[in-house]
Amino acid sequence: MSAEIGPINVFLADVKTRVDAHLTRFFEQKREHARSLSEPSVELCDALCDFTMRGGKRTRPAILIAGHLAVNPDADLGRLLDACAGLELLQSYLLVHDDWMDQDDERRGGTTLHKLFATRLQQQHLGASIAILAGDLGNAFAIELVARSATLSPHYTAALEVFWTMQRDVVYGQALDLIAYNDVALIQRLKTGSYSVKGPLLLGAVLAGADAEQRAALERYAEPAGLAFQVRDDLLGTFGAPEKTGKPAGNDLRAGKRTALIEEAERRLSESELAPVYAVLGEADADDAAVRAAMELLERSGARAAVEARIEHLNAEAQAALQAASWSELGRRRLEQLAKMFAYRDH
Amino acid sequence: MSAEIGPINVFLADVKTRVDAHLTRFFEQKREHARSLSEPSVELCDALCDFTMRGGKRTRPAILIAGHLAVNPDADLGRLLDACAGLELLQSYLLVHDDWMDQDDERRGGTTLHKLFATRLQQQHLGASIAILAGDLGNAFAIELVARSATLSPHYTAALEVFWTMQRDVVYGQALDLIAYNDVALIQRLKTGSYSVKGPLLLGAVLAGADAEQRAALERYAEPAGLAFQVRDDLLGTFGAPEKTGKPAGNDLRAGKRTALIEEAERRLSESELAPVYAVLGEADADDAAVRAAMELLERSGARAAVEARIEHLNAEAQAALQAASWSELGRRRLEQLAKMFAYRDH
Repeated sequence: MSAEIGPINVFLADVKTRVDAHLTRFFEQKREHARSLSEPSVELCDALCDFTMRGGKRTRPAILIAGHLAVNPDADLGRLLDACAGLELLQSYLLVHDDWMDQDDERRGGTTLHKLFATRLQQQHLGASIAILAGDLGNAFAIELVARSATLSPHYTAALEVFWTMQRDVVYGQALDLIAYNDVALIQRLKTGSYSVKGPLLLGAVLAGADAEQRAALERYAEPAGLAFQVRDDLLGTFGAPEKTGKPAGNDLRAGKRTALIEEAERRLSESELAPVYAVLGEADADDAAVRAAMELLERSGARAAVEARIEHLNAEAQAALQAASWSELGRRRLEQLAKMFAYRDH
Repeated sequence: MSAEIGPINVFLADVKTRVDAHLTRFFEQKREHARSLSEPSVELCDALCDFTMRGGKRTRPAILIAGHLAVNPDADLGRLLDACAGLELLQSYLLVHDDWMDQDDERRGGTTLHKLFATRLQQQHLGASIAILAGDLGNAFAIELVARSATLSPHYTAALEVFWTMQRDVVYGQALDLIAYNDVALIQRLKTGSYSVKGPLLLGAVLAGADAEQRAALERYAEPAGLAFQVRDDLLGTFGAPEKTGKPAGNDLRAGKRTALIEEAERRLSESELAPVYAVLGEADADDAAVRAAMELLERSGARAAVEARIEHLNAEAQAALQAASWSELGRRRLEQLAKMFAYRDH
């Protein structure tokens, strides 16, 4: 016997619609408050709003809701929207700061905030400073939203603990990333692992009053599920269909990323055999034929298949972790669907 | 009849001892955690620790405790130490970010963090990025500490609201300050007013379960008390005894600050009469005789006396605001002492 639940894409689209509407209402209030201060305050608030609304699949809110439903299938999802919006504001804060640290010009199909303010104010350092403050404002809003949502739960300290743990871990992870620290797994665990899957999932579950067994099972699920997401990213970055990913084929090769594909290829081939790969790795101007030759080598060597096998293994691990605790039927199936989607998405 | 309470300096020294000890214990735990990650994580945590411990009078914790005692004189102060430490970490976060925005080299008798990391990592932008992250880490720690302390109170959402309001206001205030917005009073209210007196006071009071009348009275007390603190700063920056303030006489004149003294002088004297003041204002190399002449003019014109009168008025206003609600005798007297100290301190 199994309850009728809709496909994951419908669920994700529904979450996005509701979270976007909630964010819009939240920012209307914030703009009203900023208007009571000054015109530049409105500009700061608006910049954060535009950045937050211009993109984002709202995957973290969907994970939060799935974690919540797994513990309490009868939850009023409307009451989770503050926490969902809080995750998106945390994300905005991190991206705005990261973009400045990485000196990126574009994000989510638009200009990054440090660049936008530098142009608007005609001063690079001042623009960067205002962008850092826009990120800080996002962080303050995130705390407001998560703290409000924590009133849902008698375990509100546990909910806030999930939040500050995400913040702390991602800061440590970003610092290691910037100095190119040699423990890539640690950086992934701290930076992406913490706030992409584990944090949102635990936040949702804790707000529903998850017990210790459920929390432990979700942590064991989150790690392989999050890793499968990233490893799939590595595959899509090289072999993804350009019309789906929005990036040219072989994009990660030209960008010089040391993906799981490269690691697997190096395990299988000698340095001289790898010449066609190294010829394009990090070469932004490499021509299409050379990139295609590198891709063929990655395929022929078995590297691509090995990475696919690794994803399959990670997905199986995530699915198995769910067996260690009891869940609502609805929540368990959403979690299964999400892990599968992370592992096998095409964009 | 009045209870025997000690002088304010003894109270402040006692608060500082206890808060410093609590911060030291907190950072020992955090260093232990950072050690479980990586050596650079320990460095990041240590830099924040050193910055937090190397200075600071812990005035905000004293204000928090006074606000708490005013509502509940029998409070166990040990249980307030998390919130006190949280305020100091919030302060560290703000100062570290501000120092980079203002491109300052020194703070609290040591090197600012962006400068320290730029030297250590031999790269300016990377150093600034790591410093911003050290500030962000302080913010995450502050939230942890304040959220923990909020478990003290059934009104924990109100306590957290005080916290995120401080964060938000100070961000808006700093943004206006950076672009030299022309509403100085608004900047003061948002930037210093919010997190120097009002926020700490309300946080302490709310954690003790303050009612609406008490909160309103404290807000009315906080504004003039905080302003008196700043206006006294203006006087000390020009007329303060160098052996008390640690800064040369007339320091603010050479630094070109538009203090309350300058405002009062401009109200009293014509532009030509003001020539001796303008001759040194913002002139870092002005000689001592010229600075002394400007100081004498500020004295003779009545500007100094007018600023003193303003402080007296602000202090009276703060003291009067306390009459609008009922307090414990101990707490009321601490609040009276604090306002008086802000207004009449000599350093």
